[in-house]
Amino acid sequence: MQPALAISERISRLTSSLVREILAAAQAPGMISFAGGLPSPEAMPILPKSLNGYDWQDPVFQQYGTTEGEPYLRNQLAHHLVDSGLMIKPDQILILSGSQQGIDLSAKLFVDPGTNLLCESPTYLAALQSFQLFGAKCIGLALNADGINVEDLVRNIETHRPSAIYLIPSFQNPSGTCYSLQTRQAIAEVLDHYQLPIIEDEPYRELMYDHVDRTPICSLVKKAPWIYLGSFSKTLWPGWRVGFLAASLDLFPYLLRLKQAGDLHTNRPGQICVANWLAGSTKTEDLRRLREIYKHKRDAMQHALTKHFSDIATWKTPAGGLFFWLALHKAIDTRPLLKEAMKLGVAYMPGEAFYSTASEPQLGKLRLNFSHASESDMQQGLEILARLFRSH
Amino acid sequence: MQPALAISERISRLTSSLVREILAAAQAPGMISFAGGLPSPEAMPILPKSLNGYDWQDPVFQQYGTTEGEPYLRNQLAHHLVDSGLMIKPDQILILSGSQQGIDLSAKLFVDPGTNLLCESPTYLAALQSFQLFGAKCIGLALNADGINVEDLVRNIETHRPSAIYLIPSFQNPSGTCYSLQTRQAIAEVLDHYQLPIIEDEPYRELMYDHVDRTPICSLVKKAPWIYLGSFSKTLWPGWRVGFLAASLDLFPYLLRLKQAGDLHTNRPGQICVANWLAGSTKTEDLRRLREIYKHKRDAMQHALTKHFSDIATWKTPAGGLFFWLALHKAIDTRPLLKEAMKLGVAYMPGEAFYSTASEPQLGKLRLNFSHASESDMQQGLEILARLFRSH
Repeated sequence: MQPALAISERISRLTSSLVREILAAAQAPGMISFAGGLPSPEAMPILPKSLNGYDWQDPVFQQYGTTEGEPYLRNQLAHHLVDSGLMIKPDQILILSGSQQGIDLSAKLFVDPGTNLLCESPTYLAALQSFQLFGAKCIGLALNADGINVEDLVRNIETHRPSAIYLIPSFQNPSGTCYSLQTRQAIAEVLDHYQLPIIEDEPYRELMYDHVDRTPICSLVKKAPWIYLGSFSKTLWPGWRVGFLAASLDLFPYLLRLKQAGDLHTNRPGQICVANWLAGSTKTEDLRRLREIYKHKRDAMQHALTKHFSDIATWKTPAGGLFFWLALHKAIDTRPLLKEAMKLGVAYMPGEAFYSTASEPQLGKLRLNFSHASESDMQQGLEILARLFRSH
Repeated sequence: MQPALAISERISRLTSSLVREILAAAQAPGMISFAGGLPSPEAMPILPKSLNGYDWQDPVFQQYGTTEGEPYLRNQLAHHLVDSGLMIKPDQILILSGSQQGIDLSAKLFVDPGTNLLCESPTYLAALQSFQLFGAKCIGLALNADGINVEDLVRNIETHRPSAIYLIPSFQNPSGTCYSLQTRQAIAEVLDHYQLPIIEDEPYRELMYDHVDRTPICSLVKKAPWIYLGSFSKTLWPGWRVGFLAASLDLFPYLLRLKQAGDLHTNRPGQICVANWLAGSTKTEDLRRLREIYKHKRDAMQHALTKHFSDIATWKTPAGGLFFWLALHKAIDTRPLLKEAMKLGVAYMPGEAFYSTASEPQLGKLRLNFSHASESDMQQGLEILARLFRSH
């Protein structure tokens, strides 16, 4: 007798590979891609040849490291985070293989099949995929100009008794929303009242082009458990896969052991490169240059959008991050249109992908990345897209 | 009202951090450690300064990469694996953040709470931890000199209807067992008959000191789904966290998407370093040197064990790998004794840690690593340990 392959129930929740396929196809030669969130190579700091006295060939860094991460990097990070308002000790920091791993660890920590999680609607699609893979029901809270609505938050906590809330308060992906300080404070109070854990994801923190408040909600809560996710993939070198989390002391030990079971520790040469950059003298200038390059690109896309999309869509100019979020006047499904766009050599990310499977996606939305395409490609690509949408 | 912290049921299965604590304490200065499985720094190949024409500072390798891994590395690996008997295409290879990640992905693929898995008894403790974290009941099969007993395997498949079997057929951790070709072939036939998936873990493959058969069972199965896990942490640089899996085509797409949800992709500079080593001219000599160093250390430990442990324990000389597995004549619990040993400056790994929580651990076993301690420390440490065990 030959039984059928017994794979886990979890696998039935692995969402379709649509996004993988889009991103793969979007990298075809000649394609003008607004689809992914690739940083611009010109904006990445040059990797130093000598690492401030650290020899990257040093066998010390080739040996197994600790699960927590390099003490040197954890120290530098604790220091670096003071500016954000997060006053934490190095032993609250866990170095990750990219901040995406922090979502995997958070899902392992909080989610059983059927667990309710709150998130924004729309939100980061790979977070949705990861939480849903573990069986979470992701309940989306609508986004206003200054963040989620606090009464809506309270109502959803009371109704759904969620295990945690996942938020991207600064330059939210995909909407570009940046929460006001007032909203951040009000959310922190609600979380404290219910002792609801927050997973705060801040990959875009440093990509600020207009001055706005970016105080982490994690720095405002007094009693609620919290996990803060940080990335270097948008500021330094995504290919190194070095990110981090900081967490309240009640959660940290679990996260540490989950990380150990997951991949033992993060690659050490990458950790040393990042630590040296944090400790080095070029940081301020590197970040200034990065913001300048991206602000220029954002403005160029704003200009091109105004030219080509004013009559068929609305959007807000994002104060930071990597994306414009467009709402077409007509609520058409942007997924089937993508195929046509790609035949014309232009890729974008259909808005539907950013909505939880627990609700109907809103139609007529698309996410456009402005960091990767050149300015002339941007002009040309948006003209092609606008013509396509106008014809439907 | 303030609800209690709602963490997942999974977390209740996070096993104690005993092993973490041992390994951390074992790295204290002056400690003679037989506890971990650290490779010897002198045995690691020197990291090349220039990467055979690849510039490690090249921005190409600092950008996001593909989830599958670098095509260059996947090609080199497919070629490298031919020697082992695994005839596969590069597109069956998934690059991992260390082969430990392959266990996490396999657990995600196969394990729901209550899923039965077969494994060896004893087996790799971090695999047990990871499978058990996801809720697997790990059913251990006893090890003979040439591997598990095939009739025992059939009986356990019929009784428990497991979802997969996890085996380390070459220089098994912790027992050092190397399966005979006959046993490998018989297991493959059984797996094909039941179409039972195998997860074959081979981190020690290259560490062979006496000639034995190492044909992967994955290369012998004809119909059963399979996952083959490979590591560079024992031969090259564990700090880079580069490992890989190869899988049958029915499993590969799931593993790829699980990897993407877990950490997007593996660090690219590390992948390039490994690929260059595989493609380079030093490989054969590096591996010869590595085997020579470790064979020498193994022989030194064999000699020291004969001198100090002959009257209180039995063991088999391992033909490869990194460990001796001792069975004390008296079945004492080696866990509480560890504290005393560490006060005397010597660390070892208690055997109890290598048994599934689904069964009673066997007492009186310990695992001794021979790759890390110097020969004089080895002599001194074993003398201290033998005296301690003799006194109990």
